[in-house]
Amino acid sequence: MWRSLRPIGRSEASGGYRRSAWTGADAECRLWFQAQAEARGLDYEVDRNGNQWAWLGDPSRGDAVVTGSHLDSVPDGGAFDGPLGVVSSFAALDELRARKVSFNRPLAITNFGDEEGARFGLACVGSRLTAGKLTREKAYELTDADGITLPRAMEAAGYDPAAIGPDPERLARIGAFVELHVEQGRALDLSGDPVGIASAIWPHGRWRFDFRGEANHAGTTRLVDRRDPMLTYAETVLAARREAELAGAVATFGKISVEPNGVNAIPSLVRGWLDSRAADQSTLDTVVTGIEKAAREYADRHGIDLDVVRESFTPVVEFEHALRDELGTILGGERAIPVLGTGAGHDAGILSESIPTAMLFVRNPTGISHSPAEFAAEDDCLTGVTALADVLEGLACR
Amino acid sequence: MWRSLRPIGRSEASGGYRRSAWTGADAECRLWFQAQAEARGLDYEVDRNGNQWAWLGDPSRGDAVVTGSHLDSVPDGGAFDGPLGVVSSFAALDELRARKVSFNRPLAITNFGDEEGARFGLACVGSRLTAGKLTREKAYELTDADGITLPRAMEAAGYDPAAIGPDPERLARIGAFVELHVEQGRALDLSGDPVGIASAIWPHGRWRFDFRGEANHAGTTRLVDRRDPMLTYAETVLAARREAELAGAVATFGKISVEPNGVNAIPSLVRGWLDSRAADQSTLDTVVTGIEKAAREYADRHGIDLDVVRESFTPVVEFEHALRDELGTILGGERAIPVLGTGAGHDAGILSESIPTAMLFVRNPTGISHSPAEFAAEDDCLTGVTALADVLEGLACR
Repeated sequence: MWRSLRPIGRSEASGGYRRSAWTGADAECRLWFQAQAEARGLDYEVDRNGNQWAWLGDPSRGDAVVTGSHLDSVPDGGAFDGPLGVVSSFAALDELRARKVSFNRPLAITNFGDEEGARFGLACVGSRLTAGKLTREKAYELTDADGITLPRAMEAAGYDPAAIGPDPERLARIGAFVELHVEQGRALDLSGDPVGIASAIWPHGRWRFDFRGEANHAGTTRLVDRRDPMLTYAETVLAARREAELAGAVATFGKISVEPNGVNAIPSLVRGWLDSRAADQSTLDTVVTGIEKAAREYADRHGIDLDVVRESFTPVVEFEHALRDELGTILGGERAIPVLGTGAGHDAGILSESIPTAMLFVRNPTGISHSPAEFAAEDDCLTGVTALADVLEGLACR
Repeated sequence: MWRSLRPIGRSEASGGYRRSAWTGADAECRLWFQAQAEARGLDYEVDRNGNQWAWLGDPSRGDAVVTGSHLDSVPDGGAFDGPLGVVSSFAALDELRARKVSFNRPLAITNFGDEEGARFGLACVGSRLTAGKLTREKAYELTDADGITLPRAMEAAGYDPAAIGPDPERLARIGAFVELHVEQGRALDLSGDPVGIASAIWPHGRWRFDFRGEANHAGTTRLVDRRDPMLTYAETVLAARREAELAGAVATFGKISVEPNGVNAIPSLVRGWLDSRAADQSTLDTVVTGIEKAAREYADRHGIDLDVVRESFTPVVEFEHALRDELGTILGGERAIPVLGTGAGHDAGILSESIPTAMLFVRNPTGISHSPAEFAAEDDCLTGVTALADVLEGLACR
């Protein structure tokens, strides 16, 4: 399976994947999914929001065990983030058939559309729409960097944007959803385990810091006469690192926009975006409050006006304890399987309010993610497939 | 004169001027110049590099006194940077005619093209070409943000780009060039003088700092596993301010480019441009060496690769002492006229290697430059006109 999927959307220059939603590379990935489903005699369908499904058994029973992930990528993303879950799902089904198990619940494999949100700026669009957490009106307003709206992009890819919206009937078919994903940190590497179970997705948010100073000539303006917002931005970047370190959280300024952004001009505006996440809400509050307080002190000192706007926020997602414990029991055997939190969002997190969901993580020895250097060892991937097969057997074949 | 010039290229939104070279606004400014020349019975001509000239007397005498400046602007620039010199030149001629002086040297007023370099990234293109400090080949490679080359832009504005190149014959006509300019700092405001004489243009340069780290997921990568170049950039921005403060120089990071510049991505590359200037070469060397040393220490600590490239450099320009002293004698009268250095480049600086040049500065009470807030008081502007008239009379009528 990897052999046929590997070349799709791969950039020769970076070695990374460029599989943004509703692009040509995404369409090729979708054809690959359909071919895998049909090769296994599964019933293939696409739902109103463009998510792909491959069914074994009768969906209308209403207690299906569903597994899968996504095939789209961030720009220059790695080979595993998303595809590992989909490939492992098909491979786990092959394994279960080799075990000659009999299913007493329907099984489905899925590929959720536009998980990364790389093109339209909002992650998990396919699962959000299905779960009713994104309205059609809001989805219609999503626009990519070239000014192409989501409905136009879907139409260009051969889908009907008039159909998108909540899909409670489809959710009602699902008894449990299990998503396998490459770990995006190094917790499993540090604990020495190939596979782990998710406890929760950390609460996380994005804040925009607008530092406004005074545009002026970089060659002739005395330092004491300057109101340079780049200095305040720089101090805030360092404060964010300090606050996150103190609290055991993460905080990142990875995106910036500067006006006028000229070599010989003191900026009038530096806009920086803070991404921060922590294991619990109160820690996250402490970190962000600390960063904003430090930024305001620096701003006051340099005569900079500061606006802080929370652009998005996702509270903590606790995966269902009963399902999580069931996975622990199925996989535990002789020793305990590690249970770990994650700072990354997933379709499983979006769906967890509507249906019982769980996640399996496969070890990532470097922790690198959203980069061509993302990696998982073949042995660990195979251990992941076996673990997923065990889970599906435990849930669907008893 | 101001009334007819003021609305050209003015942005209603910002209140600033957008008179980039070879645009429609620039063409209107050029028509204005031609009309002013013709209204005064001056001989109007455009040279091979698109610089405008208005002659009183016979250019072939070879000892003309020339004054003028430029009419183009940076994006959202002020009303005075450039135009004050051109308007004051015409006004000074009117004053001399009112004084009924007789000229024993030819006089010319000029508008140099593309002084700001806002469109094609290189300043003083008109005077550089004329002085042979920019080759036709290099000029042909200049390209604006829309991919339009300088020759195509000149052609679209009705000029012949095939003609551009060094113009020693035109330079040979000039005995002295005096440029009046609004001050771009607050030295005259602090000393309490309406007008000053330039001593030198500070040496200045632009350095590109490329900080390369490792792209990674902002939500899942532990702080200790990060190689985040934004931190090193931030520390370098603050180091630049410290080094400049210590040395009494200026240093500015006003332009930045980040890859991938995503809210949830630790950057792989942060590219920052340093602009630094100082009163003399050794001070500038000290500042830039200090900044680079600090940046390398931070980079080593965070596992960041750092490349520093000097993109441009202009050594100190000392205006001709004889001409400068002559201006001091003409204007001095009862008290000494302040002589001051400047961190900004000018056409007068470019021409100073070829011909005797001098500059007059008019007080700028806020020091703000390259901004709609740039300002000079009417009284000070009139004092500037009188001073320029005195200088032209002293040089051309004795």
